[in-house]
Amino acid sequence: MGTKKLELRPVSEMSTSKDSDTNYTAANVKAPRMAGLLLRCFTWMMESDIFGLIFRLKLKKDNLITKVFQQTEYHEPPMFQPHFPIEEVEESGVIQLEQNRSPPDHVARALECLYPLPSRNAIGDRNRHPFLHWKIRDYAEAFVSGRITPYLVAERFLSAVEDSCNRSPNMCFFIAYNEEDILRQASESTARHAKGKPLSVLDGVPIAVKDEIDCFPYLTTGGTKWMQKVRKVKDDAACIKRLRACGALLVGKTNMHELGQGTTGINPHYGAVRNPYDKDRCAGGSSGGSAAAVAAGLCPAALGVDGGGSVRMPAALCGVVGLKGTYGRVSSAGVLPLNWTLGSVGILAASVEDTLIMYTAIQGHLAQDWIASFPPAANLPILKDFEDGDLSKSKIISSIKIAKYSKWFDDSDKSVRTTCYSALNVLQQEYGVKVLEVTIPELEEMRLAHFITIGSEISASIGIDYDRMGIHDSGADIRVCFALYGSFSTRELLSAQRMRFRQMHYHMEIFKTADLIVTPTTAATAPVCSADGLKYGELNYVYGAKLMQYQIAGNFLGLPAISVPMLLCQIGYDENGLPVGLQLIGRPWSEATLLHLASAIELLMAPNCTKPPEVVYDLLI
Amino acid sequence: MGTKKLELRPVSEMSTSKDSDTNYTAANVKAPRMAGLLLRCFTWMMESDIFGLIFRLKLKKDNLITKVFQQTEYHEPPMFQPHFPIEEVEESGVIQLEQNRSPPDHVARALECLYPLPSRNAIGDRNRHPFLHWKIRDYAEAFVSGRITPYLVAERFLSAVEDSCNRSPNMCFFIAYNEEDILRQASESTARHAKGKPLSVLDGVPIAVKDEIDCFPYLTTGGTKWMQKVRKVKDDAACIKRLRACGALLVGKTNMHELGQGTTGINPHYGAVRNPYDKDRCAGGSSGGSAAAVAAGLCPAALGVDGGGSVRMPAALCGVVGLKGTYGRVSSAGVLPLNWTLGSVGILAASVEDTLIMYTAIQGHLAQDWIASFPPAANLPILKDFEDGDLSKSKIISSIKIAKYSKWFDDSDKSVRTTCYSALNVLQQEYGVKVLEVTIPELEEMRLAHFITIGSEISASIGIDYDRMGIHDSGADIRVCFALYGSFSTRELLSAQRMRFRQMHYHMEIFKTADLIVTPTTAATAPVCSADGLKYGELNYVYGAKLMQYQIAGNFLGLPAISVPMLLCQIGYDENGLPVGLQLIGRPWSEATLLHLASAIELLMAPNCTKPPEVVYDLLI
Repeated sequence: MGTKKLELRPVSEMSTSKDSDTNYTAANVKAPRMAGLLLRCFTWMMESDIFGLIFRLKLKKDNLITKVFQQTEYHEPPMFQPHFPIEEVEESGVIQLEQNRSPPDHVARALECLYPLPSRNAIGDRNRHPFLHWKIRDYAEAFVSGRITPYLVAERFLSAVEDSCNRSPNMCFFIAYNEEDILRQASESTARHAKGKPLSVLDGVPIAVKDEIDCFPYLTTGGTKWMQKVRKVKDDAACIKRLRACGALLVGKTNMHELGQGTTGINPHYGAVRNPYDKDRCAGGSSGGSAAAVAAGLCPAALGVDGGGSVRMPAALCGVVGLKGTYGRVSSAGVLPLNWTLGSVGILAASVEDTLIMYTAIQGHLAQDWIASFPPAANLPILKDFEDGDLSKSKIISSIKIAKYSKWFDDSDKSVRTTCYSALNVLQQEYGVKVLEVTIPELEEMRLAHFITIGSEISASIGIDYDRMGIHDSGADIRVCFALYGSFSTRELLSAQRMRFRQMHYHMEIFKTADLIVTPTTAATAPVCSADGLKYGELNYVYGAKLMQYQIAGNFLGLPAISVPMLLCQIGYDENGLPVGLQLIGRPWSEATLLHLASAIELLMAPNCTKPPEVVYDLLI
Repeated sequence: MGTKKLELRPVSEMSTSKDSDTNYTAANVKAPRMAGLLLRCFTWMMESDIFGLIFRLKLKKDNLITKVFQQTEYHEPPMFQPHFPIEEVEESGVIQLEQNRSPPDHVARALECLYPLPSRNAIGDRNRHPFLHWKIRDYAEAFVSGRITPYLVAERFLSAVEDSCNRSPNMCFFIAYNEEDILRQASESTARHAKGKPLSVLDGVPIAVKDEIDCFPYLTTGGTKWMQKVRKVKDDAACIKRLRACGALLVGKTNMHELGQGTTGINPHYGAVRNPYDKDRCAGGSSGGSAAAVAAGLCPAALGVDGGGSVRMPAALCGVVGLKGTYGRVSSAGVLPLNWTLGSVGILAASVEDTLIMYTAIQGHLAQDWIASFPPAANLPILKDFEDGDLSKSKIISSIKIAKYSKWFDDSDKSVRTTCYSALNVLQQEYGVKVLEVTIPELEEMRLAHFITIGSEISASIGIDYDRMGIHDSGADIRVCFALYGSFSTRELLSAQRMRFRQMHYHMEIFKTADLIVTPTTAATAPVCSADGLKYGELNYVYGAKLMQYQIAGNFLGLPAISVPMLLCQIGYDENGLPVGLQLIGRPWSEATLLHLASAIELLMAPNCTKPPEVVYDLLI
């Protein structure tokens, strides 16, 4: 009969209740931090035929991959992409956007759902608050009132970016910004405003774009030195086309972790993105440049791409809002195909309302999108629920039920945990939100399954070019990644998809009793940018796992998720004054609910308690 | 810059018109036939660590796998399962089965769409025709009229199977049949008929089941010696439950190619299934036992499973009808999970009308099916289109447009080709059906992509048990398969899914101008059962490729496909008197059209031209 086999119980026998008999397993990462010469030696070994084979087998074995995905039997079939049960969930107060309307029409609809702009203005308010990020509506009001022109904002933007590059250290927010292109757009927008015919509230508002998304005339580097040589940009990505239709002022391509395969935002080619709250610390990755540019006031919002928390992590670390939507809701046309089943274009913004405006503008996909035939994606619903801004009386908010898995929630740094608990308490007390205790089995297995999947997909997608060109010209951390990524077997990949099936089941079970799952966004705040990692990259899977700890379900299961900065609340920062993020993970297509609750959290803001970032610019005053 | 890379043109630049500039590449199989000692030595080498590695790399390289799936760049994303564009195609004359009705209700609806039973009866007609397979309605009429009872039919069935086992060679139709269980079912059916209350037209009609489908109280061996030891059968498969609800007399588990991984039906454990038309020849695989049992008159219909032509190939070789439906239309619950994205339960029957009755009975899936959330599967539509049986005046039939890729069609043995052309000519002349010339690019690449996919999926699904138990107790051909199956990389698997995307595009382009694609079912007729392959299996990938040549789109793209035996037409047999099958491949969900045209072909039948199989039984007279 051979040896006894390992077996996972069928999902039908598993429980997600608080009394579930499954144990919480903390991330079990067995890989020491490496940088500099040590990392270069390790890279050489990982890439060599014989040593590499042995090392890779050992790494997979030490990290449970062999056991869980080679030797364990599953009862469930694979789920190759997020497939959501077709289920009508009544979301009260929700307005469906109509199909086939233009992006400006959608944005106009979103504006109707916003709370009235507070009685501050671009000049007056700065005296009362030590710092406030200007919102898209602040820009629009300033443009419409003629107080300032988009052209002047563009000039201020260019000076500010130049200043950020000349600091010590260089903040490295952008990989490319084209002065001529920016001023041309700004002139056109200024002319439209002069005629009193802006295209939308976004007309002339500076928006930055992660360098993983095609935005003509820029190259798309994906944070590499070689991608732009093999892949030409001939057109805007679908989401960029929509922003252009709204008149947005596209101000350049933001820096990112190379190929999106890292959590720090340290890029050996374009520099480490610095955190505006502490320039000795990382902005996080991979969409670090977009998060940092928003935090530094260079734009009210930016685009990122989130395949493993790449929008939400830097959002939390830089104290801004980060949203990734439901799988398939935003077109991936014109985005670097670094994976197919995990990533979504997402929004980084200084406020929840700007997240809503931006998301409303870019959502929707094209008939020719490969994913277009797949999910029955309704257009975005938006929530209109206010009586003179007093959300504490909202029946919608008070009916929200939040699931929390305490063992998981608590497996975070103390300052993060404490801050997030304070926010939760306020939510319960101020709004009457209910918190339910649940269990999510096999979280560590899900983390590994996501790792196998993202590694296999990126290898298949860009592996041929990487093997020809990238391997000679990549950071050491990327080279180690790719050496490992190429070592997964088809059995491991397919078992990982069976884990996706199991996890979808668990999450859907939880969503039968709760509307959202709450976690800290990251288990730690922004890490220090160590000097030894700047030149060739650094390998720090243990810290990386802390940052990614709460990200996986958003990608592996395609669930919408938002990170809300706690600095907007009374609760503040960690002991180093660094921002902390709270994450809300929603059921499929429930972005409206997520944004609505995030608004409620934002309204807890006590501006006098906030402190401005260390590096920050003001483009309106 | 490294070496020049191989690249496939984007699908949008490819043409499927008859003037397409793509070349037809015949199957390029580089593997000599092996059996006996040579095969055992080869198996040992394939399974050894070092030799095996070298051999597998060489086999993959010689057979273009390395080039097409490792070294070639694709522009398209992977398609992990068949995803059909959501498109409403008007099918005239189609009646939709209602959701949530019982299987007997569905069957009753199907009966309304059948041509009236010819004026023959179970006793009279045999004098006029040298041989006719009795249909389900013949059985029902005999039972209802009281001319014979299900119990007597069961007894005759048992004698006939016994006789088939005692022949030289043993015909090896069944792996298991349980006399007690069969007689018990027959008694119950007889009692229902005695009360005048049969459950449906299927009540008491003998139906055989491939030993890959759970049918209590039988074990499910999958043609192995070990599967039944690790996987217990506790319940009927979903399709079996539906047949039981109709009162079908389930007469046992038919023999099959081990684990479905072969085209001959030679099974070293349960014997080689013999072809009723020539007992020195194979019935084909993998559902060979089901096809042969039907051809030999032991039952009017049987169930098979088709993951790579496993229903259609033996149907063609044994002169019966073989249907595999659209991916997802029949529940896979309770079927051995030998793959997830390719296989479907299918029907083998002696007539098209029985194929319709059986398919109507088993179609539909369960809420808990893993696939249930995936395709928007309408219930089966059925066609009602007759005025006193004269289909030549049917506007539906005359409006059908058939696509044909001549270079592919003609890449078959001369006798097969000639027979199929004669059938096509008759269809054009008698019914006015139109034939359009098309091109299907990359057929050889699709064959390889399917091979990688089925190999990776079966390894992931049953690999753990195979490694523990199967490897010690499997035919040599299976061991070679599994050694090769385990050698695919994730890049190869994902590239294969990108080929699936391309092929779906080509086929959907063709279905914009044509309703069906026509091919011979197999490029050759039934192969000889060589003595040297009986004990350990044989490896004959070249002949196997000839049998599988036209099967792949049905599985890899999940399209419905039917094989119609030409022996029902005036055209007859190949030069050895062996049956030839014509295949119709339809657009997604178009089973109604397929069955309708197949009926038209069947009506060309000239019974006086048919010859009975060499081994055949009559259970009604």
